[in-house]
Amino acid sequence: MQTLTVELGERSYPILIGSGLARSPEVLARHVPHRDVLLVTNTVVAPLYADALEQALLGGARSADGADGAGSTGGAGSAGGDGRGPMARRVVRVVLPDGEQYKTLATAQRVFDALIANRYGRDALVLALGGGVVGDLAGFVAACYQRGIDFVQMPTTLMAHVDSAVGGKTAVNHPGGKNLIGAFHQPRAVIADIELLRTLPDRELSAGLAEVIKYGLIRDAAFFSWIEQHMDALLVREPTALAHAIGRSCEIKAAIVGRDERESGERALLNLGHTFGHAIESATGYVGWLHGEAVAVGLLIAADLARRLGRVDVALVERLRTLLARARLPVQAPPIGAARALEYMQIDKKVQSRRVRLVLPAGLGDATVCADYPDAVLADTLAAWFGAVPGSTAPSARTAS
Amino acid sequence: MQTLTVELGERSYPILIGSGLARSPEVLARHVPHRDVLLVTNTVVAPLYADALEQALLGGARSADGADGAGSTGGAGSAGGDGRGPMARRVVRVVLPDGEQYKTLATAQRVFDALIANRYGRDALVLALGGGVVGDLAGFVAACYQRGIDFVQMPTTLMAHVDSAVGGKTAVNHPGGKNLIGAFHQPRAVIADIELLRTLPDRELSAGLAEVIKYGLIRDAAFFSWIEQHMDALLVREPTALAHAIGRSCEIKAAIVGRDERESGERALLNLGHTFGHAIESATGYVGWLHGEAVAVGLLIAADLARRLGRVDVALVERLRTLLARARLPVQAPPIGAARALEYMQIDKKVQSRRVRLVLPAGLGDATVCADYPDAVLADTLAAWFGAVPGSTAPSARTAS
Repeated sequence: MQTLTVELGERSYPILIGSGLARSPEVLARHVPHRDVLLVTNTVVAPLYADALEQALLGGARSADGADGAGSTGGAGSAGGDGRGPMARRVVRVVLPDGEQYKTLATAQRVFDALIANRYGRDALVLALGGGVVGDLAGFVAACYQRGIDFVQMPTTLMAHVDSAVGGKTAVNHPGGKNLIGAFHQPRAVIADIELLRTLPDRELSAGLAEVIKYGLIRDAAFFSWIEQHMDALLVREPTALAHAIGRSCEIKAAIVGRDERESGERALLNLGHTFGHAIESATGYVGWLHGEAVAVGLLIAADLARRLGRVDVALVERLRTLLARARLPVQAPPIGAARALEYMQIDKKVQSRRVRLVLPAGLGDATVCADYPDAVLADTLAAWFGAVPGSTAPSARTAS
Repeated sequence: MQTLTVELGERSYPILIGSGLARSPEVLARHVPHRDVLLVTNTVVAPLYADALEQALLGGARSADGADGAGSTGGAGSAGGDGRGPMARRVVRVVLPDGEQYKTLATAQRVFDALIANRYGRDALVLALGGGVVGDLAGFVAACYQRGIDFVQMPTTLMAHVDSAVGGKTAVNHPGGKNLIGAFHQPRAVIADIELLRTLPDRELSAGLAEVIKYGLIRDAAFFSWIEQHMDALLVREPTALAHAIGRSCEIKAAIVGRDERESGERALLNLGHTFGHAIESATGYVGWLHGEAVAVGLLIAADLARRLGRVDVALVERLRTLLARARLPVQAPPIGAARALEYMQIDKKVQSRRVRLVLPAGLGDATVCADYPDAVLADTLAAWFGAVPGSTAPSARTAS
C-alpha cells in the first residue's frame, strides 16, 4: 500500500493506494472511525461492492437492529476503532441512479433526506463509493449538511482515483453548466482500492486515462513518456502499471492542491482541456460523452490552439493525438457549432471579467493560464473543431450512444 | 458611522453601523466595487428600498442597457470605485417571496438560475437586502455558486442587524429541521443602515430584541441592565439607543466569531435558547412564530431548566421574563407536547453522539454548554412548557397569526 498526503495544515489527509483496502476492517476502522455512516453509491456499483464494504465496516458482525430510513439498509455491529474496543456502528445506504445527468440539486436533496430521516448528526460521516458523480455529489452534501460533516472518498473509477476523489472540489451540475453549484470540502481520506477497477468498463478506463495523460502534459514530460511506454499494460489493467499511473497522478495533483487549494493560481492548470470539454458535455446534455472523453478532445483543442498561437509545435499535437487514440479516446469534437461552444465556455467557471481564461500547453510537461489570446484565433480554432455552424463538421463516432 | 471588525485573518470584514449607508454611493463604491451585482431581496423590502439602492449602486446614472435575465430588472451605469474612475455596473434584482417557509433549496435554485441566466462569473457579488431569511439564503447561494463568490449583507430587520447578518452562517431549511443545509461563508462587509429599520413592523422589532437580550444574558450583565433601562427608547426606535444596542450586540458576536468561527466551542453559546426555539419553529412549520419570538421562549425555557438544575436562581428567570414581556415578546410556549419538542430538538444541529447538548445560563452574563443534565429534569421542563401531550397546555396567545 502506498500512502500519499495532501498537505493542507490541519485539513491534511491521506490518499491510500493499494489492493483490497475496501474489504479491510482495519483500514476502515482507522479511516472511518465514525459510528454513523451514510454510504452513498449508485445502481451500478452497489451490487458489486456495497455488501462487502458494509460487512467490512461492521467488522463482520451484524445485528438485527436495522436502520430506520426509507429506502436504506443498514445494521449495527461491532468494529474495532482506534483501540476503543467494539463499537456500535450504523451504516445506511443511499443508492443513486447512475450517470452525470443525475448530478443535480434534486439528487442531492435525496441524500439530505436520508441523513435527516436517520437523524444523523454533525458527527456522522458520508462515505462516497463510486465514480466522480457519486464523489462530487456526496461530497457536496457532506459540505452542506449541518454546514459540513466528515466524508471519505472510495473511488471506483480510474477517473475518480486520479482526479475527482482528490482535492476537495465538490459540486452538482446546473442545466446551464457543469459543477456550477458546489463547495470546497476536503475528505478525511481517499481510499483508492485498485481492486475496485477490475469491473470497470473499458470505456470508463479510457476516460480515466485522459486525466492521467493530462498530468504528464501539464507537469511531467518523463511521466508522459512513461504513459506512452506503458499504454498497453494500462489497457489490460496490469496492477503495477495502474498503481504507478494512479500514484504519480495523485502526487502531482496533491502537490498542486497543497499549494493552491482554492484555485487562486496554479490549481487552474489542472483544468487543461476542461473548458472545451465542459462545453462538449453541456451542449450534449451530459449524456453520450463521458467526462474523460470530453477532456481528451479538450486537451487536443487546447494543444491545437496553443500551436496556432505559436506556443507549441505541431509534433506535440500529433504526439498527444496518437497517445489519446491509443488510449481509445475520441480525438474529434461533436458538431455543436463554434458559437454554441463559445457560449458554454463563457458560463464555465474559468471566466473572469467576462473573458474566458484558458489553460494552454507551453511545451511537454508545461502549461500556463492565458487570457491574452486574439479572439480571432480562438474563433478559428472553435470553428475547425466544432464547425462554423451546428452540424457542419463530420460527426464524431462518439457523439451519441 | 461606527465600524467594527470581525477578525478572521484574511477573511476579516467590517460591520458598518449608521444612518443612510444604503443610499450612499461612496459607501457602496467602496464596499461593493464589483461590476456584476445580484441584488437579492423580497416582496416586502423591494418596494421600500430596492430602487434607491440600485440608484446608489449605479452612482445615480442609468442607461438603457437592461439585464437579460427573466424576472430581473437592472441597468448599466457608472459608479466611482476605488479611484478607478467610472465603471459599467450591472445590477440584476431577484425578488423572493417573504417568509421563513420559503427559505428552501427550491428558492435557492431560483437565485442560482438568475446568476446563470445572466452569465455571472466568479467575480460577481451577491448583495442580500433583507432580513435573516434573505441573508441566510442569499449567503448560501453565494457560498455555493461556482464554489463561492463574494457577498455583502445589508440587513433590513433588527434580527439581521444584530445576529443573522454577522458571522458567516448561511443556510436553508429542510422540512426535517431548520438550517440543516448550509455553509460557513463570511460576507465581504455588513452594511447595517439603521434607517432601514424605520419601516420594520413592531412585531419584527420585538423579535430582534430577543437576540439583543440574549447577548446580555450570555456575556454582559451591564448590557442586560442597559437594555432594561432603555427598553422604552428601543421600542420607539430612538436612533442612539438602537445604534448602541446594535453596536454592542455586534461587538459581542464579532468577538466570539473571531475566536471560534466554525463553532467548535465558544460560538455555541450564541445558540442559547435556540434549540428550544428551533423545536417551536419546526413544529409549527415555520409559520406563526417569528424566529425571535421562538428564541424568546427558548431563552426562558433554558433559564427555567437552569433553575431546576440549580444553576441560577428564580429571580433571574423572573427578571428575564419581565424584560421579554416588556419587549412585547411571547413568554409562553405553544402546546406541541414534550415528546414532539424533544424529537425536533434531537434533529437540531447541536446533537452530538445522539445526545442533545444545551446551552444554559450560569448566571446573568454567563452561560455554558451542558450535556450532563439528568434526562428526567429535561423531560419535566419540556412537559411544563410544551404539555405532557400535544394540546395539553393553555394555548399561547401568539401561536398563530
